[in-house]
Amino acid sequence: MTPDEQAIRAVHAAWMDAVNAGDLEQLLALMTDDVVFLNPGQEPLGRDGFPDRFTAGHRQFDLRCISELEEVEVAGEIAYTLCRDRLSLRPRAGGPAKALTGHRMTIYRKQPDGRWLLARDAHTLG
Amino acid sequence: MTPDEQAIRAVHAAWMDAVNAGDLEQLLALMTDDVVFLNPGQEPLGRDGFPDRFTAGHRQFDLRCISELEEVEVAGEIAYTLCRDRLSLRPRAGGPAKALTGHRMTIYRKQPDGRWLLARDAHTLG
Repeated sequence: MTPDEQAIRAVHAAWMDAVNAGDLEQLLALMTDDVVFLNPGQEPLGRDGFPDRFTAGHRQFDLRCISELEEVEVAGEIAYTLCRDRLSLRPRAGGPAKALTGHRMTIYRKQPDGRWLLARDAHTLG
Repeated sequence: MTPDEQAIRAVHAAWMDAVNAGDLEQLLALMTDDVVFLNPGQEPLGRDGFPDRFTAGHRQFDLRCISELEEVEVAGEIAYTLCRDRLSLRPRAGGPAKALTGHRMTIYRKQPDGRWLLARDAHTLG
Protein backbone atom coordinates (compact mmCIF):
# COMPACT_ATOMS: atom_id res chain seq x y z
CA MET A 1 0.00 0.00 0.00
CA THR A 2 1.40 3.39 -0.99
CA PRO A 3 1.65 6.29 1.49
CA ASP A 4 -1.06 8.11 -0.52
CA GLU A 5 -3.46 5.17 -0.19
CA GLN A 6 -2.68 4.93 3.53
CA ALA A 7 -3.37 8.66 3.90
CA ILE A 8 -6.71 8.40 2.07
CA ARG A 9 -7.78 5.45 4.22
CA ALA A 10 -6.90 7.49 7.30
CA VAL A 11 -9.00 10.44 6.05
CA HIS A 12 -11.91 8.09 5.37
CA ALA A 13 -11.68 6.70 8.92
CA ALA A 14 -11.34 10.19 10.44
CA TRP A 15 -14.34 11.35 8.40
CA MET A 16 -16.54 8.51 9.66
CA ASP A 17 -15.43 9.09 13.28
CA ALA A 18 -16.31 12.78 12.93
CA VAL A 19 -19.70 11.99 11.34
CA ASN A 20 -20.57 9.69 14.25
CA ALA A 21 -19.26 12.12 16.86
CA GLY A 22 -21.11 15.08 15.33
CA ASP A 23 -17.75 16.83 14.99
CA LEU A 24 -18.56 19.49 12.39
CA GLU A 25 -15.24 21.32 12.75
CA GLN A 26 -13.28 18.18 11.97
CA LEU A 27 -15.44 17.50 8.90
CA LEU A 28 -14.89 21.04 7.61
CA ALA A 29 -11.14 20.52 8.08
CA LEU A 30 -11.30 17.35 5.97
CA MET A 31 -13.09 18.86 2.92
CA THR A 32 -11.90 21.22 0.17
CA ASP A 33 -13.26 24.75 -0.12
CA ASP A 34 -15.05 23.82 -3.37
CA VAL A 35 -16.45 20.48 -2.08
CA VAL A 36 -19.65 19.17 -3.73
CA PHE A 37 -21.98 16.63 -2.07
CA LEU A 38 -24.52 14.87 -4.29
CA ASN A 39 -27.51 13.49 -2.39
CA PRO A 40 -30.31 11.46 -4.04
CA GLY A 41 -33.22 13.66 -5.10
CA GLN A 42 -31.57 16.89 -3.88
CA GLU A 43 -29.61 19.77 -5.33
CA PRO A 44 -25.83 19.60 -4.88
CA LEU A 45 -24.61 20.80 -1.50
CA GLY A 46 -21.43 22.83 -1.01
CA ARG A 47 -19.29 23.80 1.97
CA ASP A 48 -21.59 26.72 2.85
CA GLY A 49 -24.70 24.55 3.07
CA PHE A 50 -23.06 21.64 4.87
CA PRO A 51 -23.10 22.86 8.53
CA ASP A 52 -26.86 23.48 8.69
CA ARG A 53 -27.69 20.17 7.02
CA PHE A 54 -25.29 18.21 9.24
CA THR A 55 -26.36 19.91 12.48
CA ALA A 56 -30.06 19.45 11.66
CA GLY A 57 -29.46 15.74 11.05
CA HIS A 58 -27.68 15.28 14.37
CA ARG A 59 -30.32 17.28 16.23
CA GLN A 60 -33.07 15.03 14.88
CA PHE A 61 -31.29 11.65 15.03
CA ASP A 62 -28.87 9.69 17.11
CA LEU A 63 -26.88 8.72 14.05
CA ARG A 64 -24.40 5.89 13.57
CA CYS A 65 -22.68 5.11 10.28
CA ILE A 66 -20.38 2.18 9.56
CA SER A 67 -18.46 2.49 6.30
CA GLU A 68 -16.31 -0.14 4.60
CA LEU A 69 -13.90 0.92 1.86
CA GLU A 70 -14.24 -1.35 -1.15
CA GLU A 71 -11.87 0.45 -3.51
CA VAL A 72 -9.13 3.07 -3.29
CA GLU A 73 -7.54 4.28 -6.53
CA VAL A 74 -4.92 7.03 -6.68
CA ALA A 75 -3.80 8.92 -9.81
CA GLY A 76 -1.39 11.75 -9.06
CA GLU A 77 -3.19 14.47 -7.10
CA ILE A 78 -6.63 12.87 -7.49
CA ALA A 79 -8.04 9.72 -5.90
CA TYR A 80 -11.41 8.06 -5.82
CA THR A 81 -12.91 5.57 -3.41
CA LEU A 82 -15.99 3.39 -3.29
CA CYS A 83 -17.39 2.42 0.08
CA ARG A 84 -20.41 0.60 1.44
CA ASP A 85 -22.22 2.50 4.20
CA ARG A 86 -24.69 1.26 6.80
CA LEU A 87 -26.47 4.13 8.50
CA SER A 88 -28.68 3.82 11.55
CA LEU A 89 -30.94 6.77 12.42
CA ARG A 90 -32.57 6.70 15.85
CA PRO A 91 -35.04 9.60 16.32
CA ARG A 92 -34.15 11.60 19.44
CA ALA A 93 -37.89 12.22 19.91
CA GLY A 94 -38.44 8.46 20.23
CA GLY A 95 -39.83 5.88 17.83
CA PRO A 96 -38.19 3.10 15.84
CA ALA A 97 -34.72 3.49 14.33
CA LYS A 98 -34.34 3.56 10.56
CA ALA A 99 -31.56 1.57 8.85
CA LEU A 100 -30.20 2.65 5.47
CA THR A 101 -27.64 0.81 3.36
CA GLY A 102 -25.95 2.08 0.25
CA HIS A 103 -22.75 2.98 -1.51
CA ARG A 104 -20.71 6.12 -1.70
CA MET A 105 -18.27 7.30 -4.37
CA THR A 106 -15.81 9.96 -3.23
CA ILE A 107 -13.15 12.06 -4.94
CA TYR A 108 -10.18 13.17 -2.85
CA ARG A 109 -7.70 15.85 -3.91
CA LYS A 110 -4.12 16.11 -2.68
CA GLN A 111 -3.21 19.55 -1.36
CA PRO A 112 0.09 21.37 -1.96
CA ASP A 113 1.04 20.53 1.66
CA GLY A 114 0.47 16.80 1.04
CA ARG A 115 -2.86 16.42 2.86
CA TRP A 116 -5.71 14.60 1.08
CA LEU A 117 -9.10 16.30 1.37
CA LEU A 118 -12.58 15.18 0.37
CA ALA A 119 -13.59 17.10 -2.79
CA ARG A 120 -16.65 15.37 -4.31
CA ASP A 121 -19.05 12.82 -2.85
CA ALA A 122 -22.11 11.02 -4.20
CA HIS A 123 -24.12 8.34 -2.38
CA THR A 124 -27.07 6.08 -3.07
CA LEU A 125 -28.50 5.75 0.45
CA GLY A 126 -32.19 6.32 0.42
CA MET B 1 -8.47 22.18 -23.46
CA THR B 2 -6.16 19.14 -23.42
CA PRO B 3 -6.64 16.23 -25.85
CA ASP B 4 -7.61 14.05 -22.87
CA GLU B 5 -10.35 16.47 -21.81
CA GLN B 6 -11.58 16.67 -25.41
CA ALA B 7 -11.65 12.86 -25.59
CA ILE B 8 -13.63 12.59 -22.36
CA ARG B 9 -16.16 15.20 -23.55
CA ALA B 10 -16.54 13.18 -26.75
CA VAL B 11 -17.16 9.96 -24.77
CA HIS B 12 -19.73 11.75 -22.63
CA ALA B 13 -21.55 12.98 -25.77
CA ALA B 14 -21.37 9.55 -27.43
CA TRP B 15 -22.67 7.96 -24.23
CA MET B 16 -25.70 10.27 -24.10
CA ASP B 17 -26.45 9.72 -27.81
CA ALA B 18 -26.34 5.95 -27.26
CA VAL B 19 -28.57 6.18 -24.18
CA ASN B 20 -31.17 8.13 -26.15
CA ALA B 21 -30.89 5.84 -29.19
CA GLY B 22 -31.16 2.67 -27.09
CA ASP B 23 -27.80 1.59 -28.54
CA LEU B 24 -26.72 -1.05 -26.02
CA GLU B 25 -23.72 -2.24 -28.06
CA GLN B 26 -22.26 1.26 -28.19
CA LEU B 27 -22.72 1.68 -24.42
CA LEU B 28 -20.97 -1.63 -23.75
CA ALA B 29 -18.11 -0.45 -25.99
CA LEU B 30 -17.79 2.74 -23.92
CA MET B 31 -17.54 1.07 -20.47
CA THR B 32 -14.73 -0.87 -18.77
CA ASP B 33 -15.09 -4.57 -18.02
CA ASP B 34 -15.17 -3.82 -14.28
CA VAL B 35 -17.61 -0.89 -14.54
CA VAL B 36 -19.77 -0.11 -11.47
CA PHE B 37 -23.04 1.86 -11.64
CA LEU B 38 -24.42 3.23 -8.37
CA ASN B 39 -28.17 3.93 -8.47
CA PRO B 40 -30.09 5.47 -5.54
CA GLY B 41 -31.65 2.83 -3.31
CA GLN B 42 -30.26 -0.07 -5.35
CA GLU B 43 -27.35 -2.48 -5.21
CA PRO B 44 -24.37 -1.62 -7.45
CA LEU B 45 -24.79 -2.75 -11.05
CA GLY B 46 -21.94 -4.17 -13.14
CA ARG B 47 -21.42 -4.88 -16.82
CA ASP B 48 -23.27 -8.22 -16.60
CA GLY B 49 -26.40 -6.69 -15.14
CA PHE B 50 -26.44 -3.61 -17.38
CA PRO B 51 -28.05 -4.98 -20.59
CA ASP B 52 -31.22 -6.31 -18.91
CA ARG B 53 -31.71 -3.12 -16.89
CA PHE B 54 -31.13 -0.87 -19.90
CA THR B 55 -33.33 -2.90 -22.26
CA ALA B 56 -36.15 -3.10 -19.71
CA GLY B 57 -36.04 0.68 -19.29
CA HIS B 58 -36.24 1.31 -23.03
CA ARG B 59 -39.03 -1.25 -23.42
CA GLN B 60 -41.12 0.53 -20.79
CA PHE B 61 -40.31 4.16 -21.63
CA ASP B 62 -39.61 6.43 -24.54
CA LEU B 63 -36.61 7.92 -22.83
CA ARG B 64 -34.78 11.17 -23.51
CA CYS B 65 -31.85 12.41 -21.44
CA ILE B 66 -30.08 15.76 -21.81
CA SER B 67 -26.79 15.98 -19.92
CA GLU B 68 -24.62 19.05 -19.40
CA LEU B 69 -21.04 18.59 -18.27
CA GLU B 70 -20.26 20.90 -15.36
CA GLU B 71 -16.74 19.69 -14.56
CA VAL B 72 -14.04 17.60 -16.24
CA GLU B 73 -10.87 16.89 -14.26
CA VAL B 74 -8.05 14.69 -15.56
CA ALA B 75 -5.23 13.19 -13.50
CA GLY B 76 -3.01 10.83 -15.47
CA GLU B 77 -5.00 7.73 -16.42
CA ILE B 78 -8.03 8.69 -14.32
CA ALA B 79 -10.59 11.44 -14.84
CA TYR B 80 -13.80 12.45 -13.16
CA THR B 81 -16.73 14.48 -14.40
CA LEU B 82 -19.83 16.03 -12.88
CA CYS B 83 -22.85 16.57 -15.06
CA ARG B 84 -26.43 17.71 -14.66
CA ASP B 85 -28.97 15.36 -16.25
CA ARG B 86 -32.56 16.01 -17.22
CA LEU B 87 -34.39 12.76 -17.97
CA SER B 88 -37.82 12.51 -19.53
CA LEU B 89 -39.62 9.15 -19.30
CA ARG B 90 -42.73 8.75 -21.46
CA PRO B 91 -44.51 5.42 -20.80
CA ARG B 92 -44.92 3.47 -24.03
CA ALA B 93 -48.21 2.13 -22.64
CA GLY B 94 -49.51 5.72 -22.46
CA GLY B 95 -50.00 8.09 -19.56
CA PRO B 96 -48.14 11.20 -18.49
CA ALA B 97 -44.38 11.57 -18.93
CA LYS B 98 -42.17 11.77 -15.85
CA ALA B 99 -39.36 14.32 -15.66
CA LEU B 100 -36.34 13.68 -13.43
CA THR B 101 -33.47 16.06 -12.78
CA GLY B 102 -30.27 15.30 -10.97
CA HIS B 103 -26.51 15.09 -11.07
CA ARG B 104 -24.10 12.40 -12.05
CA MET B 105 -20.51 11.83 -11.00
CA THR B 106 -18.48 9.63 -13.35
CA ILE B 107 -14.98 8.15 -13.28
CA TYR B 108 -13.27 7.51 -16.61
CA ARG B 109 -10.14 5.39 -17.04
CA LYS B 110 -7.66 5.73 -19.88
CA GLN B 111 -6.90 2.47 -21.64
CA PRO B 112 -3.46 1.30 -22.84
CA ASP B 113 -4.60 2.14 -26.41
CA GLY B 114 -5.46 5.72 -25.40
CA ARG B 115 -9.27 5.41 -25.32
CA TRP B 116 -11.14 6.75 -22.30
CA LEU B 117 -13.85 4.43 -20.95
CA LEU B 118 -16.54 4.94 -18.31
CA ALA B 119 -15.48 3.02 -15.19
CA ARG B 120 -17.65 4.22 -12.26
CA ASP B 121 -20.87 6.20 -12.22
CA ALA B 122 -23.15 7.46 -9.45
CA HIS B 123 -26.24 9.62 -9.89
CA THR B 124 -28.83 11.30 -7.73
CA LEU B 125 -31.84 11.19 -10.06
CA GLY B 126 -34.87 9.95 -8.24
